[in-house]
Amino acid sequence: MKIEGRNAVCELLKTDKTVDKLLLQKGAEGSLGRIFAMARERNIRVQFADERMLARESETGRHQGVIAFVSDYTYADLADLFEGEKGSRFVIVCDGIEDVHNLGSILRVAECAGACGVVIPKNKSAQVTGAVVRISEGAANHVKVARVPGVNYAIDKLKEEGFWVYGLEADGENIYACDLTGDLALVVGGEDGGLSALTRKKCDKVLSLPLRGEVNSLNASVALGIAAYEALRQRG
Amino acid sequence: MKIEGRNAVCELLKTDKTVDKLLLQKGAEGSLGRIFAMARERNIRVQFADERMLARESETGRHQGVIAFVSDYTYADLADLFEGEKGSRFVIVCDGIEDVHNLGSILRVAECAGACGVVIPKNKSAQVTGAVVRISEGAANHVKVARVPGVNYAIDKLKEEGFWVYGLEADGENIYACDLTGDLALVVGGEDGGLSALTRKKCDKVLSLPLRGEVNSLNASVALGIAAYEALRQRG
Repeated sequence: MKIEGRNAVCELLKTDKTVDKLLLQKGAEGSLGRIFAMARERNIRVQFADERMLARESETGRHQGVIAFVSDYTYADLADLFEGEKGSRFVIVCDGIEDVHNLGSILRVAECAGACGVVIPKNKSAQVTGAVVRISEGAANHVKVARVPGVNYAIDKLKEEGFWVYGLEADGENIYACDLTGDLALVVGGEDGGLSALTRKKCDKVLSLPLRGEVNSLNASVALGIAAYEALRQRG
Repeated sequence: MKIEGRNAVCELLKTDKTVDKLLLQKGAEGSLGRIFAMARERNIRVQFADERMLARESETGRHQGVIAFVSDYTYADLADLFEGEKGSRFVIVCDGIEDVHNLGSILRVAECAGACGVVIPKNKSAQVTGAVVRISEGAANHVKVARVPGVNYAIDKLKEEGFWVYGLEADGENIYACDLTGDLALVVGGEDGGLSALTRKKCDKVLSLPLRGEVNSLNASVALGIAAYEALRQRG
């Protein structure tokens, strides 16, 4: 897998993940110079390249002068997300997010809001690719992602663990009237269909954000960001 | 300007804006059928087209079977945003948002959170194009956007009008400790540089969202969404 862009690579180098090689623009200065220093300190092989070579190797077209080569993304087990975590635990479950921008943005929200991890299904969902890591500005390097056969299975497991599982959709209870403290899993639906019927039924509650306009919904990652931060606010 | 995609065109047809022509996929059914009925009711000229013609006319490559031809987006005057508005007024100011996805998403947040309108600068900023309208899922048809020579001018005007002007950036006061009731303008900075130095200085306060992880910021439209909904929550 290739990780591209300055922030994404910088966040990658802060972790202990194995980096096979770094392709860096010749004459690296500023933030690229700092990335070079970090790579040297970790004894990572750095190869200097010109604009043409970087453009040829880039998968996203937005490499900003640096591309890291790493093994494919390592998914966590579902139990890894919450076992051994102290205090109130918070997990985000994606029920069919297919847009890489939304998944990248959700990973960024998860990391910033202090979630233990994110659950995605194996099918009908965006997976954690290099593009998603870049869009997450490297947050994907710090947040655990568990890939499960189906989200309903994950919801059952989370309930067994004592989590309250709340779905986000337009016609539920007002989120601001709901207690979001304690072990919490927020389930966000896909861009087109929202939550699947069975998933919705499995949720302890369906919660909604108030909508004041004519348009009937927010973007999935924005809605999740608002809900995750309301949980963070309530947890103090 | 071309407005593409089912939701964006559907929201357009709910307004009283002039639509020159609608290009619709042959054999329109389901939501396309409903769009056809809405267009007929408003006496809008509908031209049926095959996949090839739609693909040729599409600017975004995501027309979903319908393209509306309208005059270019009509910007509002700054004063139109708040004059005559009842109750506490809420305006969003974009200080150099250059990504069309972010601008579209911000317009969607503005509409859903009940903002009076959005201010964008003429230069170094994404403008309201057909792509932005599509990304906003049509919210751009319902929310007023004022285009100003510079955001600092707009901030001065808003202050004269009695607005509290708060910037969003990583190193300010905790937003959850701040009173967001009353006439409020939230200023969101660009994807790369954040708020400009002068704009930051002009703001009454700089507010931040708590960050629990290693990555130092949220996506601009997600951060604005969280802040706008915290204002909505406080206003009840």
